[in-house]
Amino acid sequence: MPIRTGQEYIDSLRGRKLKIFLFGEEVKDPVEHPMIRPTMNAVAETYDLAVREEELATAQSSLSGQRVNRFLHIVEGAQDLVLQNKMQRKMGQNTGTCFQRCVGMDALNALHSVTFEIDEKHGTNYHKRMLDFIKKMQTENLVIGGAMTDPKGDRSKGPAEQADPDMFLHVVKRDDKGIYVTGAKAHQTGCINSHWIILMPTLKLTENDNDYAVVGAIPADAPGITYIYGRQSCDTRSMEEGDIDSGNAKYSGQEAMMVLDNVFIAKDKIFMDGEYEFASMLIERFTCYHRRSYVCKTGLGDVLIGAAATIADYNGIPNVSHIKDKLVEMTHLNESIYAAGIASSYQAHKLKSGVYLNDDMLAQVCKHNVTRFPYEIGRLAQDIAGGLMVTLPSEKDFRHPEVGPLLKKYLVGRKGVDVENKVRVLRLIENMTMGRNAVGYLTESMHGAGSPQAQRIQIARQMQLGYKSRLAKHLAGVKEDDEEIHEPSDYFKRVFKINMSEE
Amino acid sequence: MPIRTGQEYIDSLRGRKLKIFLFGEEVKDPVEHPMIRPTMNAVAETYDLAVREEELATAQSSLSGQRVNRFLHIVEGAQDLVLQNKMQRKMGQNTGTCFQRCVGMDALNALHSVTFEIDEKHGTNYHKRMLDFIKKMQTENLVIGGAMTDPKGDRSKGPAEQADPDMFLHVVKRDDKGIYVTGAKAHQTGCINSHWIILMPTLKLTENDNDYAVVGAIPADAPGITYIYGRQSCDTRSMEEGDIDSGNAKYSGQEAMMVLDNVFIAKDKIFMDGEYEFASMLIERFTCYHRRSYVCKTGLGDVLIGAAATIADYNGIPNVSHIKDKLVEMTHLNESIYAAGIASSYQAHKLKSGVYLNDDMLAQVCKHNVTRFPYEIGRLAQDIAGGLMVTLPSEKDFRHPEVGPLLKKYLVGRKGVDVENKVRVLRLIENMTMGRNAVGYLTESMHGAGSPQAQRIQIARQMQLGYKSRLAKHLAGVKEDDEEIHEPSDYFKRVFKINMSEE
Amino acid sequence: MPIRTGQEYIDSLRGRKLKIFLFGEEVKDPVEHPMIRPTMNAVAETYDLAVREEELATAQSSLSGQRVNRFLHIVEGAQDLVLQNKMQRKMGQNTGTCFQRCVGMDALNALHSVTFEIDEKHGTNYHKRMLDFIKKMQTENLVIGGAMTDPKGDRSKGPAEQADPDMFLHVVKRDDKGIYVTGAKAHQTGCINSHWIILMPTLKLTENDNDYAVVGAIPADAPGITYIYGRQSCDTRSMEEGDIDSGNAKYSGQEAMMVLDNVFIAKDKIFMDGEYEFASMLIERFTCYHRRSYVCKTGLGDVLIGAAATIADYNGIPNVSHIKDKLVEMTHLNESIYAAGIASSYQAHKLKSGVYLNDDMLAQVCKHNVTRFPYEIGRLAQDIAGGLMVTLPSEKDFRHPEVGPLLKKYLVGRKGVDVENKVRVLRLIENMTMGRNAVGYLTESMHGAGSPQAQRIQIARQMQLGYKSRLAKHLAGVKEDDEEIHEPSDYFKRVFKINMSEE
Amino acid sequence: MPIRTGQEYIDSLRGRKLKIFLFGEEVKDPVEHPMIRPTMNAVAETYDLAVREEELATAQSSLSGQRVNRFLHIVEGAQDLVLQNKMQRKMGQNTGTCFQRCVGMDALNALHSVTFEIDEKHGTNYHKRMLDFIKKMQTENLVIGGAMTDPKGDRSKGPAEQADPDMFLHVVKRDDKGIYVTGAKAHQTGCINSHWIILMPTLKLTENDNDYAVVGAIPADAPGITYIYGRQSCDTRSMEEGDIDSGNAKYSGQEAMMVLDNVFIAKDKIFMDGEYEFASMLIERFTCYHRRSYVCKTGLGDVLIGAAATIADYNGIPNVSHIKDKLVEMTHLNESIYAAGIASSYQAHKLKSGVYLNDDMLAQVCKHNVTRFPYEIGRLAQDIAGGLMVTLPSEKDFRHPEVGPLLKKYLVGRKGVDVENKVRVLRLIENMTMGRNAVGYLTESMHGAGSPQAQRIQIARQMQLGYKSRLAKHLAGVKEDDEEIHEPSDYFKRVFKINMSEE
Repeated sequence: MPIRTGQEYIDSLRGRKLKIFLFGEEVKDPVEHPMIRPTMNAVAETYDLAVREEELATAQSSLSGQRVNRFLHIVEGAQDLVLQNKMQRKMGQNTGTCFQRCVGMDALNALHSVTFEIDEKHGTNYHKRMLDFIKKMQTENLVIGGAMTDPKGDRSKGPAEQADPDMFLHVVKRDDKGIYVTGAKAHQTGCINSHWIILMPTLKLTENDNDYAVVGAIPADAPGITYIYGRQSCDTRSMEEGDIDSGNAKYSGQEAMMVLDNVFIAKDKIFMDGEYEFASMLIERFTCYHRRSYVCKTGLGDVLIGAAATIADYNGIPNVSHIKDKLVEMTHLNESIYAAGIASSYQAHKLKSGVYLNDDMLAQVCKHNVTRFPYEIGRLAQDIAGGLMVTLPSEKDFRHPEVGPLLKKYLVGRKGVDVENKVRVLRLIENMTMGRNAVGYLTESMHGAGSPQAQRIQIARQMQLGYKSRLAKHLAGVKEDDEEIHEPSDYFKRVFKINMSEE
Repeated sequence: MPIRTGQEYIDSLRGRKLKIFLFGEEVKDPVEHPMIRPTMNAVAETYDLAVREEELATAQSSLSGQRVNRFLHIVEGAQDLVLQNKMQRKMGQNTGTCFQRCVGMDALNALHSVTFEIDEKHGTNYHKRMLDFIKKMQTENLVIGGAMTDPKGDRSKGPAEQADPDMFLHVVKRDDKGIYVTGAKAHQTGCINSHWIILMPTLKLTENDNDYAVVGAIPADAPGITYIYGRQSCDTRSMEEGDIDSGNAKYSGQEAMMVLDNVFIAKDKIFMDGEYEFASMLIERFTCYHRRSYVCKTGLGDVLIGAAATIADYNGIPNVSHIKDKLVEMTHLNESIYAAGIASSYQAHKLKSGVYLNDDMLAQVCKHNVTRFPYEIGRLAQDIAGGLMVTLPSEKDFRHPEVGPLLKKYLVGRKGVDVENKVRVLRLIENMTMGRNAVGYLTESMHGAGSPQAQRIQIARQMQLGYKSRLAKHLAGVKEDDEEIHEPSDYFKRVFKINMSEE
Repeated sequence: MPIRTGQEYIDSLRGRKLKIFLFGEEVKDPVEHPMIRPTMNAVAETYDLAVREEELATAQSSLSGQRVNRFLHIVEGAQDLVLQNKMQRKMGQNTGTCFQRCVGMDALNALHSVTFEIDEKHGTNYHKRMLDFIKKMQTENLVIGGAMTDPKGDRSKGPAEQADPDMFLHVVKRDDKGIYVTGAKAHQTGCINSHWIILMPTLKLTENDNDYAVVGAIPADAPGITYIYGRQSCDTRSMEEGDIDSGNAKYSGQEAMMVLDNVFIAKDKIFMDGEYEFASMLIERFTCYHRRSYVCKTGLGDVLIGAAATIADYNGIPNVSHIKDKLVEMTHLNESIYAAGIASSYQAHKLKSGVYLNDDMLAQVCKHNVTRFPYEIGRLAQDIAGGLMVTLPSEKDFRHPEVGPLLKKYLVGRKGVDVENKVRVLRLIENMTMGRNAVGYLTESMHGAGSPQAQRIQIARQMQLGYKSRLAKHLAGVKEDDEEIHEPSDYFKRVFKINMSEE
Repeated sequence: MPIRTGQEYIDSLRGRKLKIFLFGEEVKDPVEHPMIRPTMNAVAETYDLAVREEELATAQSSLSGQRVNRFLHIVEGAQDLVLQNKMQRKMGQNTGTCFQRCVGMDALNALHSVTFEIDEKHGTNYHKRMLDFIKKMQTENLVIGGAMTDPKGDRSKGPAEQADPDMFLHVVKRDDKGIYVTGAKAHQTGCINSHWIILMPTLKLTENDNDYAVVGAIPADAPGITYIYGRQSCDTRSMEEGDIDSGNAKYSGQEAMMVLDNVFIAKDKIFMDGEYEFASMLIERFTCYHRRSYVCKTGLGDVLIGAAATIADYNGIPNVSHIKDKLVEMTHLNESIYAAGIASSYQAHKLKSGVYLNDDMLAQVCKHNVTRFPYEIGRLAQDIAGGLMVTLPSEKDFRHPEVGPLLKKYLVGRKGVDVENKVRVLRLIENMTMGRNAVGYLTESMHGAGSPQAQRIQIARQMQLGYKSRLAKHLAGVKEDDEEIHEPSDYFKRVFKINMSEE
């Protein structure tokens, strides 16, 4: 029976034997842990949304012939990529946090084409295995995590050159049934909330890195995995009584470190094993999908703009010109991100395996704006919120028989506004700009899917200065015997393509 | 015989009896005027491009059944809007200036739907007239200008309340054959280079403004029109000997004031006459198309980035990290504009008349970025160019037998670079950041299609703070009896629409 | 015996009978409370610095004839104002947080001149009382808090018009010995760590607001005061075992709400009582001093830049060009704040009472930059820090016998770097950009001493558009009979003053 | 008889035998050349100001014992540096352009200390010669130009390594009376308007560069100099009839290239000859003074803000909130520059020769803001100005009997505003943002006294990351055996210096 609702999803996480450390102790039942549960709720909403808004959050898969959760769907056209973005924005609006499923979605799609092209060159049968795996996931409706980031050790050295070979995940043993890998994956978004995890290399590999060129899927509760839970700002507020101070009591994101010690990958779940020259193709396609996936942050932006507008209203100043102007600016920045994301999706082209890939330049532009604009949106939200946001007493003080009434007396604002509601909205703004979900809205916006410099490098690769220089020289009347320039990109070919859906 | 090439277009402008004033004198033959000719060359390139790149710059019109210049095409789907943007970027790349045809294109498309909806309400037959007019333009392949901006006089008063009734264009006489209008239109882009001009009102009208609610087409050489040519920075360099100091000798933009004294509009060229309540619909649809048309500036941005890259190369420093970083930043900003433009086009929806309209919110976002980013791109270009750009002697000095060799001796840079070429590229950067085409690249980017505040007002109208507040309250746990909010926009309905092409 | 060292200061806070609420409970001994103690440590450093760096942190007072702590010194020249700024920067460097003494310092100085001018008009003797109070504070070397911000209730109404009269602090009773006041003061920086608190009105008052026009000093443990402690991001980390996760274990800031119920002010501690027309003078002078006091944030900026540089070093990438460039940008922004602060101090002028007041326009500029640049510095610090900052496990995990070694194995970086040290520095960056001291470095930078709009209003008042318009008209050749313009400011008189120290 | 007034200064420029090329022709009488004269007017105002505002624009020189023009004064304290800035701002306000005397002023001051220190090491007597030269200039009240920028040729090579030895100015002959130099100096601000020019090296020299290590003074009309005049945007408008279209008809800046062919420097005017190791000291001190001299741009900023305020007033919208907000922003940015400049001046310290040097870090910060903020101020001015600024017809059209009245009819705005005045103010804004004085306000702000990257390098040198890292480590609880760090700067020593005037 496939999982259908959020509740069924949560139930599916019970009783697994994950080894999870948090605050120096093993977590017996993550599902009931007050700090972990909100992160599962965020994933659960991806199921509930699929029930409530089927067209947006599911898709007809030509692979399994079923209507499947869009997070498990292989994109069959530009429209599918655009709808991913729209679903991501909606999920951001509904949860106000990172809902953790984009890495898996983008990994599946990237592997669809990469396995196809490995097979084409090497005569392997990874693509078939991949399709089987996807069909299984679709049928059982499971959550896939994607694990890429290795610890990297000494950054001036490649995988095979490290003093400690485990600095990059690698094959340590092989037998008839499959392979065994050791290493670690850092910053693993939602890994504990996944059913299966796809392991992937994190950087371009060379012929010396054979054992590091491995891609495979493992169940999240595979023996040999240790999860070490990452702290977030204000994380323990989830463990306090009450639901106000956490700001967004229901939803939160999750990051953990996975340590893998001799973890088994079954043969039919291996999607690359030694074809090191395809590592960079995998990474580039994955990041191309994934940098555009950061459109989700516009959904969080919508929440934060809404919170700022609400507090302005509660303070009785929604129409003061400088307040309105700040809300317009926040909206403008938020929509600028959205525009770049969907433009990238619309400008998709078809790859050999039949899957579509969004435009790479515009994906970089989208993510690069994400490393800037949420910080400014957050700053403006704090401006509108006022200083009270960081001087509010605790919920317990509001509930106290002596102090509570004093607070309610003195924090009164515009007529008709309940003080508790005002506090709730301020705590939400705190949550998104300094608290637990600021991790997702700000720092993850900075570093997820590659830090700002990574986008700049990709933009540099694609900016076609040769092409542009010729335009300038032509208009300036420069006559030169321009040598033929081989640009490392065909971005402008794509810009001026008439029919994007044609190959 | 329709006009086909740029040359034929230029020839079509000869021998007309336009009354044009420039530097206090009447211009006898604008086609041969050295300051005016480059503006015609820019328009001519819209013809030549249609010959060279038919798919990009022409379209199959279901109206006339012909392949027509895309500037005259009524958009039949989102793809047509996207292709407008792509053509606009290409035209920007090819000319480095304003090529003056977007106003006409956007006016035709806006009037397609507005005339349809006026007819629907009033039983008039404007739409049929409009279609006939478009077919005629398509068949003869003519240039249409769109004239909107009235002088406005005292801005605190409406058209009918002005001390001088001519502050807004209005009907002064009617007879069997048509109507007669008087007034003026300011900042008329490319008006002298047009064959026909469509007159439109410039702001929302009330029932008192009946005579001001007029839309009609007139030939550019209609009796009663006086054109007064607008000055541009460095305009007279076109009139000097040589072609270096003007920076971009071939192409330039054009702005003029049109004064209309009792100008006749034939009955079959009248597309609105008194239906004042449709003025705002016309303006909103036109600006929706037109603010997205500013994607053309990314083509100019490409030229300027190319010029900056070239000068960095000529100076021998193309790979210095801070230079490369500035080129990346320029590209990032330029593509952010492009992304918002095509995202708006892709997110189009169909109107009652069958024509498509791009997304309004994203069109505002596109234009609003245009009021900011070209200035920063220009600043960075000046940074890379170095101070020489504003201290270079004149071309005549370079040609002088005594001084020329001194300049060539001392301005030498990286080996293999011709000093003249270096000067040419610097003059192009000057042209685009301070000179004649800075008008098009900077100031027109600021004010064309509405000044920044106009976009902010439109963003404010569509930002749906009520919708966003509900998102925030929901996550913050606020329980309130929210009154039903009537948002003045359905932007989010559009965002989450599954199939944009469906109505 | 005056207090001398930080330790003596801490001891002086013991055994007082303050009524403090935190997490819904009364705090018995704030000195030993793990969440409160770091805030006292920050104040204690103002004593220790005075011992270690006497010239910087003390001054020779011509009032008491003693060398006194600079926070208690009445400024006797521009140089004293500049030295305040230098001490503030040093304190910021030494504590990385808000050390809470500037409000008191700035209030004393503002009241010095205001009491003088009230006496001059009304024949009162407030100034003498003020001098006595200052001398007492100097001699005993005590900490003064300044309490200004009232809750304000309905912001469209003045104090006397509120439904609840307590929305602004006001006199409720008078007797021979003094007066009794009721009301509340919000966002009280360091109030619990003060010995005496000066109560002041928060906005311009009218003749109806007589009872609200009150200034007076009360001991922090005066009967009738209830302190309600404000929460800060990550505040409870101070209450966990270990010292790593709090980021800056030793120092922190403090904000609390004070509720005053019938609190007595002795006659000789009353410095205004009914002279409502001086409220705005007091507020303007106080904010003039105080907005420039935000130079302290450059000290915090130095710490954050240092932390970012350290982490770049630990990661082995201190000389990568984009990292270095970000450190330069952070420094440039930080020094821009500093420059505006000391420029304001240097451009001081003497008031009637003999005290000096720094330049108001430049104080606004200083604070306005403080509402922007620390956010950008923080963003860049997060950029350099990398994603690990928000995915690090807890200190307890690092101390755990099984997980600790795994973390140390996998988080290893550049050779020679201890993993714990890397974690400590990342936690410090978290502390300053999202955690407890982000309140001081970011949100308080935004709202303390007036939100951004408050500075813009003051800049608007002083920008002398009339003066500037005349400059422009003169150069443009405009001939007009300019009416005499009465500018609401004499900023340019000050700019062009030859000898600032002359009156 | 010393020159006293502006008129006397202008007269002093007549009849000299300068060889000047402009537009490929020799200029017979530069004083009467309509394009050159406004540049002389700007210098003349430095004389007239000294008459009108003696305290501001002159100083008592302890050198010559006279009251001398401040541009010729050797600074005897921090106050003198501050007054330079105030005079510079006033001059910017009065002329709206570059008044060309700061290079000479800053060169004199830099050479005062450098010649002293050369003598100290080498036993030369340059300092005495320098003092004599200064006294002569003071007594005769002459204009000094400073010539630094060599063409540089191949930038990867030093002076002695160039294919053409003339790429850097160098000694080509020596005899009893003096030396002879050949080479060129680019971007020479106001050189034609100077009486004497001081030649200086442009970069750090090595022992191979002996002949390039030369500093000396020559009269501007020394035989062997060819001046080639630099073009500026819209420069020829000065040569048209009328005074409106040039925007600022009276004042303008000047840049020219100087080519020196065997030019003689008399022995007593040689201030360095071979002491190559002092070249970098000279350059660093000169740029330290000069980068702070860019405070002049705040005077231009005042004019531009005034012009924008005037046009807003003429349009009847001075109190519209977004307009006011933009004027506030322009002011804030402008004063941020000013603050950094005077802060640098106030934080001066005394050098061995007795002259004072302003703070270097803050000078960099000042100039770096100058490379950014005027562009944003200019952008905002264009925003407020509206599109009319770039579509206005020529003055001749306004004077034309037929067209003039039409323009006046249709360009009418708020009641009581003369259309010509409106046009004049718009032309001034054009002049400062795209026209002739945009060279001074924008591009020269970018590149004068070193391009942005030059300031970033200097900031990097002085940012003391070691010091800051120790602050961070201390607060983070990092225990490390820090090696002793030798910072290349003592900036913080200066920051925390108690008495700046003490050595």
